[in-house]
Amino acid sequence: MLKLFYAPGTCSLASHIALEEAGAAYEARRVDFAKAEQTTPEYLAINPKGRVPALVTDRGILTETPAILAYVAQSFPEKRLAPLDDPFEFARLQSFLSYLCSTVHVAHAHARRGPRWADDPAAHEAMKAKVPQNMGDCFALIESKMFAGPFVMGENYTIADPYLFTIANWLEGDGVDPGRFPKVLDHRNRMVARPAVAKVLAAVQA
Amino acid sequence: MLKLFYAPGTCSLASHIALEEAGAAYEARRVDFAKAEQTTPEYLAINPKGRVPALVTDRGILTETPAILAYVAQSFPEKRLAPLDDPFEFARLQSFLSYLCSTVHVAHAHARRGPRWADDPAAHEAMKAKVPQNMGDCFALIESKMFAGPFVMGENYTIADPYLFTIANWLEGDGVDPGRFPKVLDHRNRMVARPAVAKVLAAVQA
Ligand SMILES: N[C@@H](CCC(=O)N[C@@H](CS)C(=O)NCC(=O)O)C(=O)O
Ligand SMILES: N[C@@H](CCC(=O)N[C@@H](CS)C(=O)NCC(=O)O)C(=O)O
Repeated sequence: MLKLFYAPGTCSLASHIALEEAGAAYEARRVDFAKAEQTTPEYLAINPKGRVPALVTDRGILTETPAILAYVAQSFPEKRLAPLDDPFEFARLQSFLSYLCSTVHVAHAHARRGPRWADDPAAHEAMKAKVPQNMGDCFALIESKMFAGPFVMGENYTIADPYLFTIANWLEGDGVDPGRFPKVLDHRNRMVARPAVAKVLAAVQA
Repeated sequence: MLKLFYAPGTCSLASHIALEEAGAAYEARRVDFAKAEQTTPEYLAINPKGRVPALVTDRGILTETPAILAYVAQSFPEKRLAPLDDPFEFARLQSFLSYLCSTVHVAHAHARRGPRWADDPAAHEAMKAKVPQNMGDCFALIESKMFAGPFVMGENYTIADPYLFTIANWLEGDGVDPGRFPKVLDHRNRMVARPAVAKVLAAVQA
């Protein structure tokens, strides 16, 4: 059985929802960040990067949200969570995942994870101060150029939807009013109403 | 015909080499960073993020290195640049691409692109100061846990190889001695000797 290592409020929510939407048989194992469990030798043996998500499969362990999401889509092709038969449409989807992972998630991380990129506490404050602008700019681009509607990629629900949902949930905490992005906000509201999403949110918040 | 927008010394080299290895018919169009061409309205119409690479196809424009690389592999399946028939192996490959994109490339970017994440010049200096440590840590992980050999993913050359090569070329500039990572350094030397790589390097440096 698949086993997902997750932490509440983090990017692992995207993989968690995707597994649920796919109808996968999986177990969710919480990593306690308050106890810095992600830095223990036990967890580093699972993911040497010391991060969530990590997905344990019978063939080995996968890390990185875009890779896990595409793996779920390809492992459950009948759920049509990605345009698997069209390299161009699949690439468009992957481009969206990669932007969230390499730019938007990273912009957000500068609010609380400044010590990754500088040792000086004043630099952490300077990074934190710029997060609302950067997250606002990223979501302005998503809203105006990238979000097709009604789902991220258009008519079909894909693995991009739980990933956008996950990161859009961070807006308020990052000092950005989600009301500036009506399409993203409407998407967020529709996502919460999906049974798979509601089930995962209840499980991680328990 | 495919058209790749690139700039010398940047991550676009990975996509450039992949196109060449695939035997794709493509045109390479240089974006002049010295003239800030990536910020002009003309280029923003191609890639609203103002970055390279961007790949123009007859169906639309693709951005983000991992997405472009997988697109090249899927568009030229006979070149076997990715394990396309095995979702787990494909996910392992994608995990490597995603780590380079979201963590290693981002660690490097803090040396020269500090203004992305903070306004204070002192913060830029603090970020720059930590780049050798972060790039060293990333490559220590790649060398010890991720690089299978002789190629990144094992016996077969894949799209991960030009991407690692591209980023490994940044080590000296980031204040890291590549001699600390014998497998990565040997890989880099073998990559330079490949005809496709030599051809692209000559073209971008011309
Ligand atoms: N590129 C990775 C990033 C993973 C990541 O940064 N996860 C965060 C939570 S959102 C984490 O585990 N942080 C723990 C820490 O930094 O100690 C992905 O997309 O999966
Ligand atoms: N996540 C993107 C990042 C692209 C990126 O940051 N490209 C850099 C060159 S390595 C760039 O175009 N920088 C121009 C600028 O910041 O103005 C990818 O992997 O393609």
